[in-house]
Amino acid sequence: MKQLQLNKKKIINDPVFGFINLQSEIVFDLLEHPFFQRLRLIKQLGLSYLVFPGANHTRFEHAIGASHLMRQAIAALRLKGHEITEAEAEAVTITILLHDIGHAPFSHVLENTLVKISHEEISLLLMQELNQQFHGKLDLAIRIFTNQYKKQFLHQLVSSQLDMDRLDYLSRDSFFTGVAEGTIGIDRIIKMLNVYDDKLVVDIKGIYSIEKFLISRRLMYWQVYLHKTVVAAEFLLINVLKRAKELIVQGEALFATPTLKIFLEYKILPENFKNNIKINGKKVLEWYTLLDDNDILISIKEWQNHPDTVLSELAKSISNRKLPRTVLREKPLSAKAEEKYLKKITETIIPDPELAKYFLMTGVITNNAYDKLNENIYVLDKDETIKEINDASDINLTALTKTVKKYFVCYPKELDIY
Amino acid sequence: MKQLQLNKKKIINDPVFGFINLQSEIVFDLLEHPFFQRLRLIKQLGLSYLVFPGANHTRFEHAIGASHLMRQAIAALRLKGHEITEAEAEAVTITILLHDIGHAPFSHVLENTLVKISHEEISLLLMQELNQQFHGKLDLAIRIFTNQYKKQFLHQLVSSQLDMDRLDYLSRDSFFTGVAEGTIGIDRIIKMLNVYDDKLVVDIKGIYSIEKFLISRRLMYWQVYLHKTVVAAEFLLINVLKRAKELIVQGEALFATPTLKIFLEYKILPENFKNNIKINGKKVLEWYTLLDDNDILISIKEWQNHPDTVLSELAKSISNRKLPRTVLREKPLSAKAEEKYLKKITETIIPDPELAKYFLMTGVITNNAYDKLNENIYVLDKDETIKEINDASDINLTALTKTVKKYFVCYPKELDIY
Amino acid sequence: MKQLQLNKKKIINDPVFGFINLQSEIVFDLLEHPFFQRLRLIKQLGLSYLVFPGANHTRFEHAIGASHLMRQAIAALRLKGHEITEAEAEAVTITILLHDIGHAPFSHVLENTLVKISHEEISLLLMQELNQQFHGKLDLAIRIFTNQYKKQFLHQLVSSQLDMDRLDYLSRDSFFTGVAEGTIGIDRIIKMLNVYDDKLVVDIKGIYSIEKFLISRRLMYWQVYLHKTVVAAEFLLINVLKRAKELIVQGEALFATPTLKIFLEYKILPENFKNNIKINGKKVLEWYTLLDDNDILISIKEWQNHPDTVLSELAKSISNRKLPRTVLREKPLSAKAEEKYLKKITETIIPDPELAKYFLMTGVITNNAYDKLNENIYVLDKDETIKEINDASDINLTALTKTVKKYFVCYPKELDIY
Amino acid sequence: MKQLQLNKKKIINDPVFGFINLQSEIVFDLLEHPFFQRLRLIKQLGLSYLVFPGANHTRFEHAIGASHLMRQAIAALRLKGHEITEAEAEAVTITILLHDIGHAPFSHVLENTLVKISHEEISLLLMQELNQQFHGKLDLAIRIFTNQYKKQFLHQLVSSQLDMDRLDYLSRDSFFTGVAEGTIGIDRIIKMLNVYDDKLVVDIKGIYSIEKFLISRRLMYWQVYLHKTVVAAEFLLINVLKRAKELIVQGEALFATPTLKIFLEYKILPENFKNNIKINGKKVLEWYTLLDDNDILISIKEWQNHPDTVLSELAKSISNRKLPRTVLREKPLSAKAEEKYLKKITETIIPDPELAKYFLMTGVITNNAYDKLNENIYVLDKDETIKEINDASDINLTALTKTVKKYFVCYPKELDIY
Repeated sequence: MKQLQLNKKKIINDPVFGFINLQSEIVFDLLEHPFFQRLRLIKQLGLSYLVFPGANHTRFEHAIGASHLMRQAIAALRLKGHEITEAEAEAVTITILLHDIGHAPFSHVLENTLVKISHEEISLLLMQELNQQFHGKLDLAIRIFTNQYKKQFLHQLVSSQLDMDRLDYLSRDSFFTGVAEGTIGIDRIIKMLNVYDDKLVVDIKGIYSIEKFLISRRLMYWQVYLHKTVVAAEFLLINVLKRAKELIVQGEALFATPTLKIFLEYKILPENFKNNIKINGKKVLEWYTLLDDNDILISIKEWQNHPDTVLSELAKSISNRKLPRTVLREKPLSAKAEEKYLKKITETIIPDPELAKYFLMTGVITNNAYDKLNENIYVLDKDETIKEINDASDINLTALTKTVKKYFVCYPKELDIY
Repeated sequence: MKQLQLNKKKIINDPVFGFINLQSEIVFDLLEHPFFQRLRLIKQLGLSYLVFPGANHTRFEHAIGASHLMRQAIAALRLKGHEITEAEAEAVTITILLHDIGHAPFSHVLENTLVKISHEEISLLLMQELNQQFHGKLDLAIRIFTNQYKKQFLHQLVSSQLDMDRLDYLSRDSFFTGVAEGTIGIDRIIKMLNVYDDKLVVDIKGIYSIEKFLISRRLMYWQVYLHKTVVAAEFLLINVLKRAKELIVQGEALFATPTLKIFLEYKILPENFKNNIKINGKKVLEWYTLLDDNDILISIKEWQNHPDTVLSELAKSISNRKLPRTVLREKPLSAKAEEKYLKKITETIIPDPELAKYFLMTGVITNNAYDKLNENIYVLDKDETIKEINDASDINLTALTKTVKKYFVCYPKELDIY
Repeated sequence: MKQLQLNKKKIINDPVFGFINLQSEIVFDLLEHPFFQRLRLIKQLGLSYLVFPGANHTRFEHAIGASHLMRQAIAALRLKGHEITEAEAEAVTITILLHDIGHAPFSHVLENTLVKISHEEISLLLMQELNQQFHGKLDLAIRIFTNQYKKQFLHQLVSSQLDMDRLDYLSRDSFFTGVAEGTIGIDRIIKMLNVYDDKLVVDIKGIYSIEKFLISRRLMYWQVYLHKTVVAAEFLLINVLKRAKELIVQGEALFATPTLKIFLEYKILPENFKNNIKINGKKVLEWYTLLDDNDILISIKEWQNHPDTVLSELAKSISNRKLPRTVLREKPLSAKAEEKYLKKITETIIPDPELAKYFLMTGVITNNAYDKLNENIYVLDKDETIKEINDASDINLTALTKTVKKYFVCYPKELDIY
Repeated sequence: MKQLQLNKKKIINDPVFGFINLQSEIVFDLLEHPFFQRLRLIKQLGLSYLVFPGANHTRFEHAIGASHLMRQAIAALRLKGHEITEAEAEAVTITILLHDIGHAPFSHVLENTLVKISHEEISLLLMQELNQQFHGKLDLAIRIFTNQYKKQFLHQLVSSQLDMDRLDYLSRDSFFTGVAEGTIGIDRIIKMLNVYDDKLVVDIKGIYSIEKFLISRRLMYWQVYLHKTVVAAEFLLINVLKRAKELIVQGEALFATPTLKIFLEYKILPENFKNNIKINGKKVLEWYTLLDDNDILISIKEWQNHPDTVLSELAKSISNRKLPRTVLREKPLSAKAEEKYLKKITETIIPDPELAKYFLMTGVITNNAYDKLNENIYVLDKDETIKEINDASDINLTALTKTVKKYFVCYPKELDIY
């Protein structure tokens, strides 16, 4: 007669998707694990908040959102008659929940400086570690993650051109940056998913939604992910961390939070992660899972006061948001032009030509919304044949597959060059 | 000391844009005029509500929405330093408010059957009529409408590839059909508008928004405006009106609402509208402004009981939403195939081969999201040069400019051909 | 290996809730039935579109929306461990889908003039008629509708203070009128529903959502449902129909659409509906299901030209939206004041004092957001006791239960009284 | 002929309100100032992100949002004929932009532990400091802030029951927590603002919007601001900071970020802020503006490893989100019950009865949505009289003015008491 209120704690308020219902015990337990809780302190879009003030959302929210979409995709595919067992459903939900667990703070920045191993590899190492702690309950999830499971479409739901990862992050990043045009038709795309020969495909009726999705993604690339001020801030961060490391190698005293200090003082190689060696009383993976955005930001705040001009100037530039001027160009900077810039820098900021290089950042950014060579998107026609989307669409989508390159130069605004 | 509440009546609740503030007396008076009030009874998307149950929005709402966007565009352009006098602002707002006032119910259907003049011409005739009633206060609005005013960009705000008309209808139709993917970034597009050499252009920063806009428009075309079931319903309506007219010409008795009867019984030529001749005691433009969706729908409801099989079967098909099957094809139907269809119809529905043709509808539908030959969209670069958007975009937009043709055949479902 | 696309046609785009998935064959078949299709031509909010231009949504959309919420409520209750068989789920979905099928166009207006039977009774009669056509498949749905089924909470999901009917209409009316403040937290309210002793209750955690719901409902009453201009339009419509009926009884010639004519010419009693007598070759229920908004609006449009001043003036007033002035008062109008108004009317509009009454409308409007005497809302506490919401809430909700009465007078604006 | 793109940098993407246009140079310059940039690193809702994963929004976004609403309120009041000079408009916009600039990280927590001065006082001190740096340009803004300017309604737009501060934070907090029901009708409330006798009032037509606003606020209080898990986390943070301070006073070594260390090591009195004394080479206000959320979170992360059990256990509890159980009660805990709890703690966690107190938190939380004794909300009737909203509303709003008290106890989950 009497009825209990169940599962109360397992409903999560998500600004993007509303109520999210965690549907299994193990998912809930993984969420509570410190490895996963750490993601609360790692912003999804790194330094982008310097340009988009609302972009403070974290990898924690993203992972939960993606697992929510996974549940919807499973339901949609089951409705079309595809068998997905409850064990498979739970496993693939775990896979998507943990697919980003290996991200460092300011991921791309750190992978270019202090951490010499990709976040995907770390994700796998952490999943294996969790699998031990959970007595093998993540076996199937790991097989799906590494694409060793027979039903290939499950892996594709986690990692492909149309995976739940990007469906979530495009929606979420669009939501929090306030770039409303990035919105994609998630509900419809998921309803249009299908499986053919164990591969993830899209029903022909959904083709316009896919085109729109590709265009939205492209727009998000240029308007957000490759926003030139964000790019400048990231290169600044790379340089400040390089300089900090260099000073430490030279034996200079330098404040750093205890966790960041480990990564500045030790040169940790990929095999050190795989063997999970001990450093200063803790295993390297443990150190890794202790590092978050705040370690970087607090350290930089202090470096503003350091006697080394390079370190302090770059640190001030980030902390006070006095970002360099960034110019996009069709061609890379000529050696001659570069020299001219460096000369100006030696005249106005720092006389040492070697150190001057820290203030000039050049490089190339590229975007391809739909990567033709990589995983393709296939469309299922009504006559049950499949086609690559590019052949199915009556517009020339190859335009979208073209890699667009833009060269950039960032230099201090006070140089007064334009 | 005391303060009055002003302009209370002039705020309109709009589900799409929120509160809309009518900003001038004359706009308010035009809105109250029976010519304009009539638009409340003319659905923006005609028979589309048979496929999209929410698509009951009217040309009344659209005209108000477009005038709201016009006020925003004016503010944005003024902020960029372009002079727009208050008289010009009011005039161009009136122009957009009245640009669609000449629409008949189920516009394209009626222009193919009972009304042999385009809605644009009627709009102008009605604006001239209103101008008389308003003692010449619409002079400037009419000059802008007919593109006879020096500041060409004002006309382009009313009628061009980026006019306020389509910004409103794409948003509004997307909103009411529930096709969320049709959403466009109106706020941003309007903020990116600029004027160069008296022409409407778009700042280079807005290029991705324009690309997105073009793709959204394309999606709305295929998903809504050219939805095959909607197309079928419209051709059905054309045929039922043709048959009714034919029967009346033959002297058959036929119920019709008094207003529709005028258009069925008299053959009214474009010059009759221009001369505004009297028929049955009222001028032809007055009759025109009395005709609304309900006249058509009520008459068809009655026609279900008419002894003529063609009329009654087609009327039932619309009234009870038993719509024909529609097949899209790459090529037109061959004469031979058409014969085969007609034969089936004579066997199962109506023996007379001439009448059988009423049950077979063929034709072609086309879509070009961005019409290259017509009005172009120009982009203003930072170096103050302008380019056609196709040259400015790094994707190949010509793909979007290609006219896509689809041939269709509609036939009664009971024919059982597939 | 190959996979079919199933159920394609059964997804409906809804502007309010997104995609709606019809989950059973019979629901789909009922939707296609002419009785139900008719609801497409009956506006949910009658004449409110004269004040809220977006309020053109129909009873068709509402019924589908409510059935969508019903499916969500069923899922939520099952998740809390309550057994609801698939047969029960389908039946209660049918009940909510059909609960409003008996509505006449401009329902309250017609029930006060031409149709002397409540829409609830007609709903039941039409459900019984459908049950015959569907060979008894609606038996359980009808038992739930008439509250004769043991699991009482199923009836309460259809008809109570927290039924899916009002959850849908409050959201939908708020959406289409653009009165954004009417928004209620549907998702959360549904997640908080529970069952105790076969009765529908709300988990204690949901109490603030219920308070908010009651306040929103109250706001919608005063801002939309009882908006004084809408009230005026409705009384105008009552008077115009009364006058038309009176003229017909007097033998005057009068245009009316064929269906409306039946209801003007014949006095149809409740028992005539129950016996479903034949009039003019059709059964009375069939005539009823042929009547829609357009019959009324087209007839009124014509009546503008009728020689009877009362009929033509009132008809013009509605058709051209020249609505009377409405004043809300704390007390009813005194007999003396009424006489003064009538005198003015005889002086300026129509000399006959009897006919003058058609131009003066008085009455009372009331609102209680939460009807204490009727069905109560019960809250389930964590200790598994239940309380009436008024006792559970720490604010004094009785304030909301108080019936608020406002008296109104509507009179032609040209009287120039204030 | 040629036209420049102006003000580009001054458009900010806001997820809540869309594009925000900064309308004056000085506002832009203040935004760039390090005092203001600091707000990017101070979360608006402190530790609430532990319960609402999306609640990572900052005081930076809030201040900008509130200044955006201020511009809208000014426009609405001007439209009603109230004179607001451009200097006043700019000043009041600055006031609202800076009204929260004195907030410490985890504001209420720090005001209870390390900072013995209210954030309002600090805001004023920082505004005065900025006024010096900006050569007196903030004079009028400061007079409005301190309510010394004749047009009192300007102060009320910044600080009253209906100020732009709470309109923004209620919307924003509702948006980012995902508690959709907290949504308020900002657009309508602002449109209903008016001024009478130099006081901010609300037009009578807006009364239902105000009622709804008060109810929403109440709902946000109970559902978000006083969420019991959030309350527990905050008291935990208070205790961990108290313990850290205590240990430092006792001479224990303790990691802390350099900025936090200042506040742990020195006892800074209100007059020290006012005199802006120097500590360790920097003025105290400068130290204050260097302190952000990250200082607290990084220090707590390290304290997990500290030998002191109290410090390390409490730090772990926050860092790993192992929050205490919280029970809400109608009455405070009796001395006897408290003793029982403490005894359990000494048995299971820490033997020292003095230290055990750190693990038991008790207190009272209260909410009044509308504070009757404080600033009232006045309503302007059509007859130009004003009434207190409580007298104008036909529901008994005093219910909302009642202070609701709830007592709470938080204790470690492992105590296993319920």
